[in-house]
Amino acid sequence: MINVGVIGFGYWGPNVVRNMMATPGIRVQMVCDQDSKNLSRAKGIYSRLRLTTDYKEVTDSSSIDAVAIVTPVSTHYEIAKRALMKGKHIFIEKPLARTSKEAEDLIRMAEAKKLVIMVDHTFLFTGAVGKIKELIDANVLGDLYYYDSTRISLGLFQNYVNVIWDLAPHDFYIIDYLFKNKPHKVSATGLDHFNRGHENIAYITIYLKGGLIAHINANWLSPVKVRNILIGGQKKMLIWDDLEVDERLKIYDKGITLGEKEGIYKMLVDYRSGDMVSPKLDSTEALKKEMVYFHECITTKKEPFNDGHAGLRVVKLLEAASQSLKQDGRHVNVNIG
Amino acid sequence: MINVGVIGFGYWGPNVVRNMMATPGIRVQMVCDQDSKNLSRAKGIYSRLRLTTDYKEVTDSSSIDAVAIVTPVSTHYEIAKRALMKGKHIFIEKPLARTSKEAEDLIRMAEAKKLVIMVDHTFLFTGAVGKIKELIDANVLGDLYYYDSTRISLGLFQNYVNVIWDLAPHDFYIIDYLFKNKPHKVSATGLDHFNRGHENIAYITIYLKGGLIAHINANWLSPVKVRNILIGGQKKMLIWDDLEVDERLKIYDKGITLGEKEGIYKMLVDYRSGDMVSPKLDSTEALKKEMVYFHECITTKKEPFNDGHAGLRVVKLLEAASQSLKQDGRHVNVNIG
Amino acid sequence: MINVGVIGFGYWGPNVVRNMMATPGIRVQMVCDQDSKNLSRAKGIYSRLRLTTDYKEVTDSSSIDAVAIVTPVSTHYEIAKRALMKGKHIFIEKPLARTSKEAEDLIRMAEAKKLVIMVDHTFLFTGAVGKIKELIDANVLGDLYYYDSTRISLGLFQNYVNVIWDLAPHDFYIIDYLFKNKPHKVSATGLDHFNRGHENIAYITIYLKGGLIAHINANWLSPVKVRNILIGGQKKMLIWDDLEVDERLKIYDKGITLGEKEGIYKMLVDYRSGDMVSPKLDSTEALKKEMVYFHECITTKKEPFNDGHAGLRVVKLLEAASQSLKQDGRHVNVNIG
Amino acid sequence: MINVGVIGFGYWGPNVVRNMMATPGIRVQMVCDQDSKNLSRAKGIYSRLRLTTDYKEVTDSSSIDAVAIVTPVSTHYEIAKRALMKGKHIFIEKPLARTSKEAEDLIRMAEAKKLVIMVDHTFLFTGAVGKIKELIDANVLGDLYYYDSTRISLGLFQNYVNVIWDLAPHDFYIIDYLFKNKPHKVSATGLDHFNRGHENIAYITIYLKGGLIAHINANWLSPVKVRNILIGGQKKMLIWDDLEVDERLKIYDKGITLGEKEGIYKMLVDYRSGDMVSPKLDSTEALKKEMVYFHECITTKKEPFNDGHAGLRVVKLLEAASQSLKQDGRHVNVNIG
Repeated sequence: MINVGVIGFGYWGPNVVRNMMATPGIRVQMVCDQDSKNLSRAKGIYSRLRLTTDYKEVTDSSSIDAVAIVTPVSTHYEIAKRALMKGKHIFIEKPLARTSKEAEDLIRMAEAKKLVIMVDHTFLFTGAVGKIKELIDANVLGDLYYYDSTRISLGLFQNYVNVIWDLAPHDFYIIDYLFKNKPHKVSATGLDHFNRGHENIAYITIYLKGGLIAHINANWLSPVKVRNILIGGQKKMLIWDDLEVDERLKIYDKGITLGEKEGIYKMLVDYRSGDMVSPKLDSTEALKKEMVYFHECITTKKEPFNDGHAGLRVVKLLEAASQSLKQDGRHVNVNIG
Repeated sequence: MINVGVIGFGYWGPNVVRNMMATPGIRVQMVCDQDSKNLSRAKGIYSRLRLTTDYKEVTDSSSIDAVAIVTPVSTHYEIAKRALMKGKHIFIEKPLARTSKEAEDLIRMAEAKKLVIMVDHTFLFTGAVGKIKELIDANVLGDLYYYDSTRISLGLFQNYVNVIWDLAPHDFYIIDYLFKNKPHKVSATGLDHFNRGHENIAYITIYLKGGLIAHINANWLSPVKVRNILIGGQKKMLIWDDLEVDERLKIYDKGITLGEKEGIYKMLVDYRSGDMVSPKLDSTEALKKEMVYFHECITTKKEPFNDGHAGLRVVKLLEAASQSLKQDGRHVNVNIG
Repeated sequence: MINVGVIGFGYWGPNVVRNMMATPGIRVQMVCDQDSKNLSRAKGIYSRLRLTTDYKEVTDSSSIDAVAIVTPVSTHYEIAKRALMKGKHIFIEKPLARTSKEAEDLIRMAEAKKLVIMVDHTFLFTGAVGKIKELIDANVLGDLYYYDSTRISLGLFQNYVNVIWDLAPHDFYIIDYLFKNKPHKVSATGLDHFNRGHENIAYITIYLKGGLIAHINANWLSPVKVRNILIGGQKKMLIWDDLEVDERLKIYDKGITLGEKEGIYKMLVDYRSGDMVSPKLDSTEALKKEMVYFHECITTKKEPFNDGHAGLRVVKLLEAASQSLKQDGRHVNVNIG
Repeated sequence: MINVGVIGFGYWGPNVVRNMMATPGIRVQMVCDQDSKNLSRAKGIYSRLRLTTDYKEVTDSSSIDAVAIVTPVSTHYEIAKRALMKGKHIFIEKPLARTSKEAEDLIRMAEAKKLVIMVDHTFLFTGAVGKIKELIDANVLGDLYYYDSTRISLGLFQNYVNVIWDLAPHDFYIIDYLFKNKPHKVSATGLDHFNRGHENIAYITIYLKGGLIAHINANWLSPVKVRNILIGGQKKMLIWDDLEVDERLKIYDKGITLGEKEGIYKMLVDYRSGDMVSPKLDSTEALKKEMVYFHECITTKKEPFNDGHAGLRVVKLLEAASQSLKQDGRHVNVNIG
């Protein structure tokens, strides 16, 4: 039995607790939150939990094996460092840390003590990403051309981070997970309309090795909510609309075929248009599958794919994007893998 | 009566001829095309037209008052120059020319001879753009924040221009028309997946004066066709989906209100969410209205808003975007108005 | 404080308990269910509830003021009768009873003892129905022509009732609530494809007084879920799509105007097409508002609009529709108000 | 070469002429219309046609082999009869005639003279119906349960026929073509809101042999246009949305499986939910394919599937539906095949 203490019981924490509670082999023993209203909400639902407002009670408790850190990114390093020092495995919200230096520190500590760091990259456990990964690995899409994500809504303006740190991590870890080709250059543009010190609109381009390009449109000021991702390949293309209920993923047998032709045209483009298939997706709650995986990684001493290194790569992309943003789009090199 | 010669009878030319024919005060006398198949198609529809494969017969004819140039951009300068030299008004496809130097030349010639240059910026005559212009001019949207256009499809790969020159001119002239604030910086990223010498995917950011940002997602490799534009303002926001039949324009009473708050938060954001209105739009064919306007500008010696200068501004944006594209996003200053 | 006992804790019961718990002036004291698994689920959430498998413990308890009956319709009469006999107000699922005779019995008992019967007509408390009622009462739609509902899905086949008793009650009570004109004739067609004794597809037409027609398409065998209602009036028409998130209600300034014209045409029809408005709707949970209303009706001795008589009218329509169904569409007269 | 005279050049006639002109082996020689404005429109497009306002010039011309009758149904019998008498094959708009007696007369005459009657059932030649027919014939859908069509819009009020005669013929001939099981009973409800003598809203149920039910919702007063057909089978179900551009047909691997179970439930229903496929459809213009078929039937003396008998079956359904409508839904037996 893995005994867990959960730090942070605001918006996402309750989901973490509920899913850990439902996972065989995991028991949530403690919940910590600085806000006593959140704690009393926790008490209302789970009467047997130990509650505290001091995160050190959790990290330092000898009865705790693992700590879930469900707090703002600004607090991650301090809490995670202490938890690792005290020998606890950690499950931590994305992004892993404020800087790549912080992330590297945490990775070093975990490796030294053979502890698991799992970064909560929830989307990787959805039926949609699972199916897309399967298609890409089986080369169903063919050579990959682009990843194009629109992630906009009249969204909560965050006080401490810009729209990239808020919305783009989802795309960054999905890109990291799906594609073998790694990013090597990032360009970002955007604007802070209200002089808050944080951009509320941003457009990010990532150049990956091997001729794959990724683009993310992130906007807190859209009248409609859109969560739409296109992936284009030589053989097939797909659209993943995460707000669709029944037909979340659509795979198109569409594309082009290039031929040679002498004379005035260098290349000849033929268009292909066939059926569209919307596959049935596994509808198990993603967080639930992630918790089972967390348990498995700890008990079998397996390195999770959403480990500290994956978390670090996401932080490196965030740093590069923010830096490019300050320079109105000048591309910034990233050194990943 | 304005007698017109139309040069180019491929894809768009027939629409120009048909709408000119239907415009009181305009008579199409000649049609020119290098391809005799196109000419015989013209003959099949309009038996009385004079047909020729030599554009100089049109530009040089003493019975012609105006020339419509509906040919690829690479031929614009040569044909337009001769037409102006021969004292003809010109109606010319977008983009006006290959370079800003060419465009400036044409403007100078037209001004010297007091001739009209009208660049075919068709969308400006649609019911949608007319309504949006009306809303912006009446300050219904409030302070403007962004313009965000998605213009993607499994589109015809052009042989001589990249996707920016093919798709972005629409957005460039719409932006030029709608907003008083002028562009001052452009950043563009993209990729030429097939080594054709022309990018087939591009993402363009335009920084306009006064804190307005515009973005265009242009892609020839999308499995679905999207023609979607969002415009966000302080008071209202709108979506224009040009592929919608009945509800092409939706205006949302949504947005944020910023307040001051002492203490830890520098700013307080309140969200506003009200009704959505989809106004009935004028459904007259845009090109028809443009032809009436062409006639009016010539007969009343009025400078059209889609004149050579507007055409030049679009070319300057195209040049800047292409230049930034070659440098993976580094922003390029533009000097417009 | 009104002390309530809730009978039935299957699919809908938990929602009733949760919303009653959150209503000032109402306290849920007891929960009854024949299935001990349901009871232990109740215990897991609310530790202080008294639990029982015998509904009579609830109806007969002297500490209980009102009983919520959230059980299959076949049990309604027996439980409701006992509750009323014991002097309890009742909140009861739709449809009120199996037959109009049963419903009339319950009404008589409640009136004799001055007790409230509230039938759970939840949709009447949604933002959508509230807004539609407002529009109709203010004559915004003009003379009313039709109500057309599509209520289809791959739906749970009920074992004891046909698709009309399962799906149509929603439309019947909405029609009863919205329109002053009362139904006078019903025709229904449909089929029982599997010889289960209950039709799984049915099409119901209701003729209301004053030239208003209503139609309901009810189907348990549709591959997609649709909850779509059109209401057409002389001045405006509307669509209520209950599965839409943001634009659930759309009001169209569309319609026809009839003129007189001498000669060969008896009537001249002019078409009108204006703006569409999607109003912001109150998004409070409907059941929560219904509970507040239940409390208000009991404490102020007010007759609810969703009272036993409304429940009886719905049962009469169900009886008429079922009778017509057995006769392949022959219309059946109904005697309502 | 088959020489054709086309009678009627209003809304649909020009499409018939254009497609006949483009069909090898067919030549349109004459066009007739009572309205000289229509005739001059014809002349504007096709300079070599013989034009007349007297249909007898067409039917009686010795140089004409076949007559296309593209006029209102009230004139069909008179014109078709004369054409057949004069030994011409006929291509005729749906519905074939005003009464089954008229239709039977025409069939008799054609058979006596071995002439082709082809009723213009255009939808049968669309890619969508072609694909659906293929699926049904290959038993991909399994046992068939229902056909459910919504055919509504703010539609042109016809002066001489009700909404059933205007809109339902499409569904009637599609049903006749797709399903081997023939209709045996019809029930229809509806209303004439404006005392025009013709219902503007109607709901039609057709009981087919073998437990298949069809329903058509026909409405001239809808604020939105819908052309939506669901077909449910035991193995698969499909939706055909004729207003969709790209995904007109969607085939769902959804349905139920019935099992036996002892005890309280007579039957056990299992739900199945798999992939959805939207097949690429043949996009050739339907009318063009129909013309090629008309040529083939005449030259090879082949009986078309959309012959006079198919036209008669549609008329019989129209008569039955209209009769039921007058009796508020009472079912009317039909005797077809």
